Amino acid sequence: MEKFVFFGGKGGVGKTTVSSAYALKCANADQQTLVVSTDPAHSTSDVFDQQFDDDPRPVDGVDNLHAMEIDPDEEVEEHLMETKRALGDQVSPALVNEIDRQIEMAHQTPGAYESALFDRFVDVMRDSDDYDRVVFDTSPTGGTLRLLSLPEFLQGWIDRLLAKRQQSVKLFERAAIGNQEPRRMLDGDPIIARLQARKELFEYAEETLREQASFFLVLNPDTLSIRETERAVAGLSEYDLAVEGLVVNRLTPAPDDDEQGRGARYLRDRVATEQDRLATIRSRFEVPLVAAIETRVAEVRGDLLREVAAELDVSVAPDATASD
Amino acid sequence: MEKFVFFGGKGGVGKTTVSSAYALKCANADQQTLVVSTDPAHSTSDVFDQQFDDDPRPVDGVDNLHAMEIDPDEEVEEHLMETKRALGDQVSPALVNEIDRQIEMAHQTPGAYESALFDRFVDVMRDSDDYDRVVFDTSPTGGTLRLLSLPEFLQGWIDRLLAKRQQSVKLFERAAIGNQEPRRMLDGDPIIARLQARKELFEYAEETLREQASFFLVLNPDTLSIRETERAVAGLSEYDLAVEGLVVNRLTPAPDDDEQGRGARYLRDRVATEQDRLATIRSRFEVPLVAAIETRVAEVRGDLLREVAAELDVSVAPDATASD
Repeated sequence: MEKFVFFGGKGGVGKTTVSSAYALKCANADQQTLVVSTDPAHSTSDVFDQQFDDDPRPVDGVDNLHAMEIDPDEEVEEHLMETKRALGDQVSPALVNEIDRQIEMAHQTPGAYESALFDRFVDVMRDSDDYDRVVFDTSPTGGTLRLLSLPEFLQGWIDRLLAKRQQSVKLFERAAIGNQEPRRMLDGDPIIARLQARKELFEYAEETLREQASFFLVLNPDTLSIRETERAVAGLSEYDLAVEGLVVNRLTPAPDDDEQGRGARYLRDRVATEQDRLATIRSRFEVPLVAAIETRVAEVRGDLLREVAAELDVSVAPDATASD
Repeated sequence: MEKFVFFGGKGGVGKTTVSSAYALKCANADQQTLVVSTDPAHSTSDVFDQQFDDDPRPVDGVDNLHAMEIDPDEEVEEHLMETKRALGDQVSPALVNEIDRQIEMAHQTPGAYESALFDRFVDVMRDSDDYDRVVFDTSPTGGTLRLLSLPEFLQGWIDRLLAKRQQSVKLFERAAIGNQEPRRMLDGDPIIARLQARKELFEYAEETLREQASFFLVLNPDTLSIRETERAVAGLSEYDLAVEGLVVNRLTPAPDDDEQGRGARYLRDRVATEQDRLATIRSRFEVPLVAAIETRVAEVRGDLLREVAAELDVSVAPDATASD
């Protein structure tokens, strides 16, 4: 298994449960593990019955396991403040208000949320030397993966800005031979530096997702979830990212064999329908089914989490090829 | 009820079923009704067992009812082509390739999907004179609603562009007194015209959503769905758009009273949990609960759709205040 493991899927399918269970399994196998949650609703704080925040914190009673929770709304807000600050330093005071307005608008467009969250993921990946394994309870999807094609565009902007700067520097140099100021200006341009940093961030993200990450998708046994999973597999493969396994969650439990009545009929119908869908999933996807987990009435935590972890047929061993 | 009725909620909660049932109810009450679906998975084509596409088409066997389906991916593609064409006409051939690259990038950012879809909604609303009621199986959410604040920003750009143009025209006029060309240039600027059209579109959207639209949210009896619904209510109210009712869908049916065994225990546990959640929904939201619909094992269509329609406590009468 790669160092970074993502459990993707639509809201409500049970990603947090599955990723927490997998993280627990890794920790129990002596991997230093960090589980990262971005789901504000059903969070790792619920699963482990302990409050987590933006900084990794040890999980009580479990060796080798840390957890953190990222609040996407806060990320957008921080991203906004950071961008304002960085650009505010580089323009004249007269322009600051106008720039702030434009940055605010950019952050109010649909998609700002995903972009800010993606940035934060990359931060976590870059800063994970202390861990053998980092488990995310979400996965970049179509919209976010598109960010991976940004480096090419950013390079275009950087090249053009550099050309313009070089022209200016030449003019300066002709006007003041021997003065080193113009050349320093070329080296230290803060806008170019920022574009360069963004480009490198996305390049790092692309390389890391391709070479050191494993993707799993969690789905429920309904037609909508199956179609969405097909779309997610296609979206990831467009960027050469292969899904390694599917986890089907929330299967309806069967009644006892001798049970009769309205409830038993309802459950048998449902179980039969879901078995058909499992067959569909097995035949339609090239990706293997690594777990089929029944619905629990109680919240999954403690013993139940260990039960779910045992049902996951997902390796916890470090990947030999990734250890270099 | 207002002319435009939106049934929002997360994917998979049953928006298409509920909106189709409500549209059927309106049509049966002699309202000329159009139902608009944007959900590629569980579509009105499934519900009515008839293929629909981007143009409204009569529903077989139901008087007064038309249906259409919008494919969001196609909308993004068309939006892309249209933008390229419109801007391509206005720049020098040398710039066309570069402009195309930039437009393509803009369409690959997260959020392009929502923006293109929103444009299409507004088109449908503007072009709905033939109908008394238009029912959408989705609702603009936080990210998309932010587009409603665009007019203010667009006005800023328009004002600045107009000021620049006026300066140029003055210079031209000084150079060639009596020549009408410069003034025509001011009137006919294609970029300003485009910004102006966008601004008017968003203004129309805001006014129409505020004055002629009703919003309902569909949810399932689970904690995630409840939290997401709270967020959706808050998101809409931020733009002064009030939610008129909640539809709870996919309630688990109870077993017979005398049923025993694993299945009956499971169902009773679930029903009890869901009743608690219904109580939570009733107490936590100021919005009334207008329907609580049990899960059907079979696909909801035909007779089942009429059953669901009968369970919806949502008026179909035209709104007196909206008829002017």
